[in-house]
Amino acid sequence: MIIDRLYKEAKENGPICVGLDTRLEYLPEYLLNKDISNEEKLFEFNKKIIDKTFDLVACYKVQIACYEALGLEGLKAYQRTLKYIRNKGKIVIADIKRGDISSTAEMYAKAHFEGDFEADFITVNPYMGKDAISPYYKYLKTNKKGMFVLMRTSNKSSEDFQELEVGNEPLYMEVSKKIDEWGKDFLGESGFSLVGGVVGLTYPEEFLKIKNKCKNTFFLIPGYGAQGGTGKDVARILKEKMCAVVNSSRGIIKAHKGINEDKDFNEVSRQKVLEMKEDILQWLR
Amino acid sequence: MIIDRLYKEAKENGPICVGLDTRLEYLPEYLLNKDISNEEKLFEFNKKIIDKTFDLVACYKVQIACYEALGLEGLKAYQRTLKYIRNKGKIVIADIKRGDISSTAEMYAKAHFEGDFEADFITVNPYMGKDAISPYYKYLKTNKKGMFVLMRTSNKSSEDFQELEVGNEPLYMEVSKKIDEWGKDFLGESGFSLVGGVVGLTYPEEFLKIKNKCKNTFFLIPGYGAQGGTGKDVARILKEKMCAVVNSSRGIIKAHKGINEDKDFNEVSRQKVLEMKEDILQWLR
Repeated sequence: MIIDRLYKEAKENGPICVGLDTRLEYLPEYLLNKDISNEEKLFEFNKKIIDKTFDLVACYKVQIACYEALGLEGLKAYQRTLKYIRNKGKIVIADIKRGDISSTAEMYAKAHFEGDFEADFITVNPYMGKDAISPYYKYLKTNKKGMFVLMRTSNKSSEDFQELEVGNEPLYMEVSKKIDEWGKDFLGESGFSLVGGVVGLTYPEEFLKIKNKCKNTFFLIPGYGAQGGTGKDVARILKEKMCAVVNSSRGIIKAHKGINEDKDFNEVSRQKVLEMKEDILQWLR
Repeated sequence: MIIDRLYKEAKENGPICVGLDTRLEYLPEYLLNKDISNEEKLFEFNKKIIDKTFDLVACYKVQIACYEALGLEGLKAYQRTLKYIRNKGKIVIADIKRGDISSTAEMYAKAHFEGDFEADFITVNPYMGKDAISPYYKYLKTNKKGMFVLMRTSNKSSEDFQELEVGNEPLYMEVSKKIDEWGKDFLGESGFSLVGGVVGLTYPEEFLKIKNKCKNTFFLIPGYGAQGGTGKDVARILKEKMCAVVNSSRGIIKAHKGINEDKDFNEVSRQKVLEMKEDILQWLR
């Protein structure tokens, strides 16, 4: 099962997810100035980061918005990036946060679990309820695909709705429990289900509460580095069991800017991944 | 302001939104059998429907999932369809239901308010709160772009979260009121704001309650035809003021199947639009 593979990758390589939220302004100067298309530039950038980090990480996450913003050319770079990661034998999470129902969600499933944009995991928005999740089950049943559903996001205004009290609990807890329950039909040997959860790290205490109520859930944590959240916070969550991967994007893929704008800029990315790993793993020894 | 233009179109042409949720299986046989790419097939199909209906409708809605499902080729057809509608001087709503925050939402704004995939309106998911809405304001301020935010969806499992009680009201009412409030900074002469709402028609009484609390909101109603909701239900909402457009997709673009599989299949689409208009407008005379 793909979730068991991800769990194993996280245990063996460390729980690091590199976020390829690539924008043109992140590119080193040598590449920006090259006389090639934006598609080629974005892909070359991603390829160089992947080549220098794949032995250190559990998986990659690719934020489709950054590529959609460049239209068809951007999406060609997106397609090639996903393919390159999967051909390397690594797991890729397509951060698409799609949220639609029945026949429309089936179309999204087709779009992101097969064809040009095939990924191993996708992220999904639960506002429309189970109908927004279940259309993906057909693919989950192959054991080769999984999803991460938004439980609790780390942005300031997540309080607008996610913190509203329903019964005696905030909405995000109700959502989290439902997602954990829906995942029970898709449990792997690791004890985790193919229906994972996205939980931000802004409030570490809350995260522990969610974790305690969602025993089957493997988490995608978006909040390391630029979005806040320390290695110690992450380690507290992973202490009993390696139940999450932690994403960092800008902290890794933009770190070379102003430091190394040359062909070997990716040495900086590698260094940043090593630092992030140590920042987390030091608390787990 | 684009919302005033939409209001005017709805008043003058009737509140009809044709949903170009085009799938290969909807295509008439003559087109399916043609020796051209899927991109060409999808675009020719859409173009024929647009050409035969644009004088009867307020706007078009294009469901991006159907095109994403066909990968890059599908998205080329999506791009050409949007461009074709806008070049005809008609309004197009990109049904993308994106929901992400800050810098990522800015990327989605760039993706769908300029460049290859430029639309007039987009649909957005509010689960992440105001941070998922405000990144689009930059474009709203030009008065040329607008958005429809999910308030209350019409699917069965919308009850999972949207009906949960917060305070003395269901969550969807809290969400609706917030969205109406956020829109107050973007009011047009029509009295409607550039921040519209998506509300399903499964429960007409509920819709009236939402409408009464959201005086600035222009609505996109997805629920006519295949998803339920009658002309009479729609008319009750529009009686005082033309405050919505009503989308129908399959009921219009699939109606020719088994009836007319030839080049003039779009005569059936036109007929179905006329019937839908009459079904609604008969109650408004």
